[in-house]
Amino acid sequence: MRFISFKSGDKVSWGVLQDDGIIDLGAKLQGSLFSILREGRLDEARELAARSDVDLKEADIELLQPVLTPEKIACIGVNYANRNAEYKDGSEQPKFPSLFMRTSDSFTAHRQPLWRPPESDQLDYEGEIVIVIGKEGRRIAEEDAYDHIAGLSIMNEGTLRDWVRHAKFNVTQGKNFINSGSIGPWMVSADEFSAEDYENMRVRTWVNGELRQDDTTASMMFPFKYIISYLSKFYHLKPGDVIATGTPNGAGARFDPPKYLQPGDEIKVEVEGVGTLINGVIDEPL
Amino acid sequence: MRFISFKSGDKVSWGVLQDDGIIDLGAKLQGSLFSILREGRLDEARELAARSDVDLKEADIELLQPVLTPEKIACIGVNYANRNAEYKDGSEQPKFPSLFMRTSDSFTAHRQPLWRPPESDQLDYEGEIVIVIGKEGRRIAEEDAYDHIAGLSIMNEGTLRDWVRHAKFNVTQGKNFINSGSIGPWMVSADEFSAEDYENMRVRTWVNGELRQDDTTASMMFPFKYIISYLSKFYHLKPGDVIATGTPNGAGARFDPPKYLQPGDEIKVEVEGVGTLINGVIDEPL
Repeated sequence: MRFISFKSGDKVSWGVLQDDGIIDLGAKLQGSLFSILREGRLDEARELAARSDVDLKEADIELLQPVLTPEKIACIGVNYANRNAEYKDGSEQPKFPSLFMRTSDSFTAHRQPLWRPPESDQLDYEGEIVIVIGKEGRRIAEEDAYDHIAGLSIMNEGTLRDWVRHAKFNVTQGKNFINSGSIGPWMVSADEFSAEDYENMRVRTWVNGELRQDDTTASMMFPFKYIISYLSKFYHLKPGDVIATGTPNGAGARFDPPKYLQPGDEIKVEVEGVGTLINGVIDEPL
Repeated sequence: MRFISFKSGDKVSWGVLQDDGIIDLGAKLQGSLFSILREGRLDEARELAARSDVDLKEADIELLQPVLTPEKIACIGVNYANRNAEYKDGSEQPKFPSLFMRTSDSFTAHRQPLWRPPESDQLDYEGEIVIVIGKEGRRIAEEDAYDHIAGLSIMNEGTLRDWVRHAKFNVTQGKNFINSGSIGPWMVSADEFSAEDYENMRVRTWVNGELRQDDTTASMMFPFKYIISYLSKFYHLKPGDVIATGTPNGAGARFDPPKYLQPGDEIKVEVEGVGTLINGVIDEPL
């Protein structure tokens, strides 16, 4: 099922998107998708949705990020094997993943524009698969990792390339400009995926119709189960935590000359079995 | 005034610590120190505390982190000029600060033990001054920066040294082990500080009574007003946000051989005009 958070008029709610409209679970169960995840009630929500009729038309709502108040958003750096080769610095495959964190407000939602801030003209896209955690855990074994997934979503992990190089270490600055990335359109619940899906799932990114990124999770140096297990060695993973699993090669910075995003561009990130996240680009309104 | 969050029996509340006890502002104003900051009501809380008698004895409560649910905890890396010299790599002074983020549960509170996890024997201390944001802002000018400070606190920015080097970039892993650091004991409200205080404030760290770190904010390459202004270029700073301003030289990793923390050690971080944060160390209970 496609779980969404949405705005309808002045009201923020959450529910399930069906082909014929939206089931407003906020009206039936209160809370938010985040609080339902925290309370371990996603299955209850799925069952209720399965026997409910739609309440709203898709045209009546505006999608928001699926999880509105995650406690943390953890992002894996370079992860697809082909991409490490891109750096051409002769370095060996890394032993452990690179990791940084982003704030929730560094992202906007499906169909909302990314903001190019006046501080940089190097806004870049990164199409990624997002894991939403559904069950808390610490030191989770790889063989148990998939049980901790509530569902998958999509991220455009938008980045200001010059600002990630402000410091010798740590990319935080260039990864946290307000509205520089996007998460959505929805979270597809984990009952729709098998282990085989997780381990061979295609992700593609287009800019203005031109295919720029195209790879599958089979290329990942650090697959989903490794990421969940590794992160839970230091983090206490909790329901509603958001994990971005890294981007394939083909980001704009890797072209010569680089192909940074411009106002008016449209970026589509498609993840097999999840959906398509679409965002335009505008200069940040000041 | 010294604003605290605390536990009294099963109840979590917040208030002001006076010499003769605690004024329980949670009982009078509801909410939390975080929500009061978000609502811009810290002055109201101060005025109420000024005309109130104490409700509880210090012995009846257990201190918690002053701000329990910060939206973000941003940490500046190497910042004191003497410390950059410590790296002895011939690099010039950095142009911009290094920055990473931590989760709230990577910290414990005053008088609670730091946890040394089984994954590493390289737990290290870093004494730091903490800025708590009191007023939201984006692209804050340096000359307005101090107006955005709600108060100051103290951090032991505890770090697992081998885990910060897991990846080529980004120190996230070694900075986010559960209960590896500490924040507290309280937040001293900004009315007690002048610009001169912010710009020349002494921070010292002792381990088992041995002085290890001793410097003042006058040595900072990136002083408070720069940090607030710089971070607000990408972040939307909000009330309750926590900013750790970097640590002086003298962390355990810098000794030869390194002096990492051991179970039974006691670390004291004293910040002039703020107070003293004290924590022991135990092996993580598994």
